[in-house]
Amino acid sequence: MKQSFLVTKTRKEGLGEDTAINAELLVRAGYVHKTMAGVYTFLPLGLRMLNNIVGIIREEMDAIGGQEMHLSALQNPSVWQESGRWGGDAESVWFRSSLQSGGDVGLAWTHEEPVTEMLRHHVSSYRDLPCSVYQFQTKFRNEERAKSGLLRTREFLMKDLYSLSRNEEEHKAFYERCAGAYLRIFDRIGLGDSTYRTFASGGAFSQFSDEFQTVLASGEDTIYLHREKRIAVNEEVYTDEVLEKVGLDRSDLEQVQSCEVGNIFTLGTRFSEALNLLYTDESGDTSPVFMGSYGIGPSRLMGVIAEQYSDGEQSMVLPDAVAPFRLHLIALGASSQVQEAASTLYDRLQDREVSVLFDDRDLSAGEKFADSDLVGIPHRIVISDRTQESGQVEYLDRKTGKTSMHKTDPDGMVKLLYA
Amino acid sequence: MKQSFLVTKTRKEGLGEDTAINAELLVRAGYVHKTMAGVYTFLPLGLRMLNNIVGIIREEMDAIGGQEMHLSALQNPSVWQESGRWGGDAESVWFRSSLQSGGDVGLAWTHEEPVTEMLRHHVSSYRDLPCSVYQFQTKFRNEERAKSGLLRTREFLMKDLYSLSRNEEEHKAFYERCAGAYLRIFDRIGLGDSTYRTFASGGAFSQFSDEFQTVLASGEDTIYLHREKRIAVNEEVYTDEVLEKVGLDRSDLEQVQSCEVGNIFTLGTRFSEALNLLYTDESGDTSPVFMGSYGIGPSRLMGVIAEQYSDGEQSMVLPDAVAPFRLHLIALGASSQVQEAASTLYDRLQDREVSVLFDDRDLSAGEKFADSDLVGIPHRIVISDRTQESGQVEYLDRKTGKTSMHKTDPDGMVKLLYA
Repeated sequence: MKQSFLVTKTRKEGLGEDTAINAELLVRAGYVHKTMAGVYTFLPLGLRMLNNIVGIIREEMDAIGGQEMHLSALQNPSVWQESGRWGGDAESVWFRSSLQSGGDVGLAWTHEEPVTEMLRHHVSSYRDLPCSVYQFQTKFRNEERAKSGLLRTREFLMKDLYSLSRNEEEHKAFYERCAGAYLRIFDRIGLGDSTYRTFASGGAFSQFSDEFQTVLASGEDTIYLHREKRIAVNEEVYTDEVLEKVGLDRSDLEQVQSCEVGNIFTLGTRFSEALNLLYTDESGDTSPVFMGSYGIGPSRLMGVIAEQYSDGEQSMVLPDAVAPFRLHLIALGASSQVQEAASTLYDRLQDREVSVLFDDRDLSAGEKFADSDLVGIPHRIVISDRTQESGQVEYLDRKTGKTSMHKTDPDGMVKLLYA
Repeated sequence: MKQSFLVTKTRKEGLGEDTAINAELLVRAGYVHKTMAGVYTFLPLGLRMLNNIVGIIREEMDAIGGQEMHLSALQNPSVWQESGRWGGDAESVWFRSSLQSGGDVGLAWTHEEPVTEMLRHHVSSYRDLPCSVYQFQTKFRNEERAKSGLLRTREFLMKDLYSLSRNEEEHKAFYERCAGAYLRIFDRIGLGDSTYRTFASGGAFSQFSDEFQTVLASGEDTIYLHREKRIAVNEEVYTDEVLEKVGLDRSDLEQVQSCEVGNIFTLGTRFSEALNLLYTDESGDTSPVFMGSYGIGPSRLMGVIAEQYSDGEQSMVLPDAVAPFRLHLIALGASSQVQEAASTLYDRLQDREVSVLFDDRDLSAGEKFADSDLVGIPHRIVISDRTQESGQVEYLDRKTGKTSMHKTDPDGMVKLLYA
């Protein structure tokens, strides 16, 4: 895409208040726009990054047999009353509204109830199990405070998968496959090294749930991590009893701030019993389906990545797999020779399906580099009068900071960009 | 995908009430699930169809220079108060709720206000114009009645594009390009022949808006169409004065029921003035940006297509471009020879990137054919003991109803399927 065509610009001024680093960076880089407290719009660059994250998660969910669907946001209270989550403790998280035709509706903050109700119409026999369904869907949570930028919002994109098994053993096998898929996702999007599988509080059906926590100074959670074993314990279950149970010693653990980037839960028969999702086994007996739920928030991940891959102020260098473009091609100076060389290279790289943001704007070198530092595309090529003299272009690998001169052979460029 | 793996099934019983044909068909075929009145879940088959429609719309919007982004559903009243659309006439369509931290919020039923507010931070000069942004986003409308299945829902996916121009002339040029893109979209998804550009009531800045209306017996609108000229007049502006103005004669027009599948509007400076979206021209003068808005509802299109490409009861034959799979491969009988031949053909076609639903289930021929008729995949191949005897497979082009015998050469099959 030509940058002169891109509808958004970087912004010198940020949000002008007490803002989380991730939101400040992403607003200034033109990735997101703050609509209101805890609510963000994804601008073209931000949507490209979000879609890259979504694409990776989708591949990994498909690979473990997940089937994608899409549930609704609007919710009929009745199905939530059956499980006891319309009122009571869960009350404050709901956004509630009224139908013009009469009656209440709520905006889904999770989907265990509606997915269980829906599956009742399709799953009835052991032959239908195990199976799993997932979605990328907008969740709404009526958070009292929303001060961590994209890390805690009132409206956010979530990938939630629900697994259905015949029994606990079958469930556990899938649960571990999904845990593996989660680790692959965090690896692929650049958070593998900083993300730890973490013991957290469970529920009616298991002592623990598993969280995936990314070490992050601005994170809202406190965990105790064992760097070598690559596991951690959430503060909420950090007791002697738990440590003994999971075989960890306080002296080996390090207290850090972190952000929860995924969680997986054993639901057991909590919802299948409440909502009557039953199956008939080989001998004709009926049992409630054994369920699990598995969440990852792509928009939160976007905030975590922005924060982790930045200097916190003027610069981001995003991982290849999630950056909105692979290459930032910058033409310096208005000479027709430079513009023509850059334009030709741009076309040839696009022909080779390299995603390129081409800064063809009439701005100074200083302005272009400052923009490029902030926008965070990991590979940069500069064409200027100076590089033209040598018949070459200057390549900067922003991850390493190393520059090198190269011929304008597009196939060679492709090799360089995907090295 | 193997049908034994598909989590959903066809349903014999439909919604069991006074239901629109499109919803009845799509529920029974396992494409959607009704969550509540006017609210649907998209099941794996339905989501594939929806994504095919979305993909075609995206290509056409990108081709006219639209830049994709994603605005929020939650809305701060303040920006709508500036334009006068928080209360008053628009009041009933809003779903409203309250923040736990205090204050009202609404769920966006359209996005002129927030897109205008957002663009204020990025567009300020004639150099930034013209431009256009669009999104696929869930809209919420507090409809009093929701009785037309997917044709009128309380929650639905919408593609809305907003164009920004320097003046009316520049706007009109884009407006016509977008009208052309819309006609290409309807052609590609199989509604070209039955969809008419229709004069409808305009607004402050133009006498007419343009609707795109698909002739449909169950449609909520009445239009007067000129089949040869391929234009129509909406009942709401069907007066002698208008007919004279647009050069049509009552005697040439045919009254039909139809469903609005798209609309394009000249907004003029209605929102840019209210919300201060201004640009500076070459001579330094400041003017409000001239805007347009352009909507298409992919989930409504899904309902229209289902209804149009069905017998209204037991059978659909979806257009190639939108069907969830290109080919329904059906193995009949449990003989290992049949299962093996079908399985091999399935693998080979998947290697060639043909999307195949492979009915590998242990069901009778009658059950499989009834399912296949309902599910609506346009191409069918049957492998049975009988076809195996001749070393061939039976191909059915469901559009024409013609069957023919073919060798199991996968490249030949691909040719047949994409003929």
